[in-house]
Amino acid sequence: MTQKKNVTFDDIAKYTNFSKTTISRYFNNPDSLTLKNQEIIAQALIDLDYKENKVARILANGKTEFIGIIIPNLILHYYSEMLSQILATYEKFGYKFLVFAGNEQEETERRYIQELLAYKIEGLIILSHTIPSDELAELPIPIVAIEREDKHICSVNSDNYSGGWQAAGLLHRQNCDMLLHINSPSAPSVPAYGRIQGFLDYCKGHQLKHQLILREMNSAHESIQAHLTETLTEIEQNYKGLRKGIFISNDTQANVLLNLLFRKYGRLPEDILLVGFDNSPVSREAVIPISTVGQQIDKLAYEAVSLLVEQMNERKKRRPAPLTEPVHKIIPTVLYERDTTASLANLLHSSTFLF
Amino acid sequence: MTQKKNVTFDDIAKYTNFSKTTISRYFNNPDSLTLKNQEIIAQALIDLDYKENKVARILANGKTEFIGIIIPNLILHYYSEMLSQILATYEKFGYKFLVFAGNEQEETERRYIQELLAYKIEGLIILSHTIPSDELAELPIPIVAIEREDKHICSVNSDNYSGGWQAAGLLHRQNCDMLLHINSPSAPSVPAYGRIQGFLDYCKGHQLKHQLILREMNSAHESIQAHLTETLTEIEQNYKGLRKGIFISNDTQANVLLNLLFRKYGRLPEDILLVGFDNSPVSREAVIPISTVGQQIDKLAYEAVSLLVEQMNERKKRRPAPLTEPVHKIIPTVLYERDTTASLANLLHSSTFLF
Repeated sequence: MTQKKNVTFDDIAKYTNFSKTTISRYFNNPDSLTLKNQEIIAQALIDLDYKENKVARILANGKTEFIGIIIPNLILHYYSEMLSQILATYEKFGYKFLVFAGNEQEETERRYIQELLAYKIEGLIILSHTIPSDELAELPIPIVAIEREDKHICSVNSDNYSGGWQAAGLLHRQNCDMLLHINSPSAPSVPAYGRIQGFLDYCKGHQLKHQLILREMNSAHESIQAHLTETLTEIEQNYKGLRKGIFISNDTQANVLLNLLFRKYGRLPEDILLVGFDNSPVSREAVIPISTVGQQIDKLAYEAVSLLVEQMNERKKRRPAPLTEPVHKIIPTVLYERDTTASLANLLHSSTFLF
Repeated sequence: MTQKKNVTFDDIAKYTNFSKTTISRYFNNPDSLTLKNQEIIAQALIDLDYKENKVARILANGKTEFIGIIIPNLILHYYSEMLSQILATYEKFGYKFLVFAGNEQEETERRYIQELLAYKIEGLIILSHTIPSDELAELPIPIVAIEREDKHICSVNSDNYSGGWQAAGLLHRQNCDMLLHINSPSAPSVPAYGRIQGFLDYCKGHQLKHQLILREMNSAHESIQAHLTETLTEIEQNYKGLRKGIFISNDTQANVLLNLLFRKYGRLPEDILLVGFDNSPVSREAVIPISTVGQQIDKLAYEAVSLLVEQMNERKKRRPAPLTEPVHKIIPTVLYERDTTASLANLLHSSTFLF
């Protein structure tokens, strides 16, 4: 490897016969030069093989072009897909992402945020649940939350309430006698709580038999599997002979439940219908495609970065007008009807059904 | 949000009655001060609520503590798990990661690497396949590759050859009459090629009937599913009545193949055995747990960061002794025997088998 001497402003000035001040203006305020002079300097940079030192530029103009991301984990397919979509906005906005998977360790997340601030990140996207939003609102940079408690900070969330309503509606249309919703206990301040409320309101409004099953599950596969094995046994015992419509809080869990049923019956029994949430890749890649309430992950990611960039740009203005109230954007959910709610497909799979 | 005035070295000097030079030494060479004086300054930083400006420090000592990561995508479970494990090394080494998912766009990756260099990253971990290693070796920073062509750069790879050998050995022990290996066409310079060679050498050495099926598949689920549907039809037609042992190049594909079989038969037929590669989460979360040749993703990630940090530290020495030859570390693979090669389980699942 050859370590060439760095090309300096002096070198560029000598090569172009401009002053060092002119070269400096090219980097910090290019539009103050004529287009012709800009072109001459740009060509000189190529000729001299000039390597830009962004760190030096940051000191000059304060723009690091860094955004921090704090995500709970990359195990849930929803999160790895979301991260993928956020990273893809590099092509559109040019921001670079410093990524941290917090694994729900509140103190580690706090320490990491302090590190990110020391690196002069311009903004933060946060998906993890640990640090309350009133604390986050005190940080000296713009923040956008995705699908977490967001009372005091800007956020982009799915329309969770409509999502819960859509799921219950689909199971109702497919003639389920008993509607069940499996979720983790969550506070009404968390956006995902809307799924529970939407489901309950639909069932009550349509006078449907229903049950809400709340169980604390962590993101480890073994924990989800153990809990859902128990839950499934209870459901099958309690509602024998009924056509059961199960709405479960995410596709990762829907996939585990579907696999448990396939291991037991070799198929999805005709008296169980299943709807997940997220439309994360696992819903299409499951043993049979899972019906799901789709979060538009690409749109959530894009809108989150976009909302953040708006605020970061605002702060760069000579007279910034920061937001007085946090902005909350809502992205519609999209219902995907697939094989786990297709009653005809259920019947055709059934070995006991006779025409 | 309150924007406090930044605390300067001047402020700290006044507060502690030390000189500015002493304060500066505290940040850049703390061990040149007595422990007592270090403690006095540390306490002053707390009292004054001093916020470290790492960008300024970088200019002073050239250490950004940034590592760049270029990963092909986050769709393959292997990659999202690897990224997760790399990010987790923050706790051990303190390095921050700038992450980019290149989606096999060679020119975008080149542009991104130039951006990373402008940000003075100290090292680069690369998993994407697009840019040849001789070009990467010319970059002025240490680089470690994971599971990609690595002739001219350091790397950490799984023992792919042993892995292929282990997979064939397992299928052989389980009395398969016909061994098949499904993979993408790849050059012998890519580490994963070792899986093919290990499989072939085992089959030839043991005089087993075998076939190598090479198909170009991209990482999109629909493409994998379409290709494997065709491949499965061919295999079932060509080897009727034989006990078929299929070794497939990764767990994501193994999962698709297993799901195709469950959709068709409601179970894994007793004349098909299946081994994947990677031990990525999907292998445990599949409809039945998939036997797999495990890559020790946590070890690969740790060793890659560790090897990179060693070289980054070497460069900070007064008289650095850079590597004269790239180092290639090999991590053993671990065989996981699960339900897709458990012949007894196969038989018990079978509806045609009678005791």
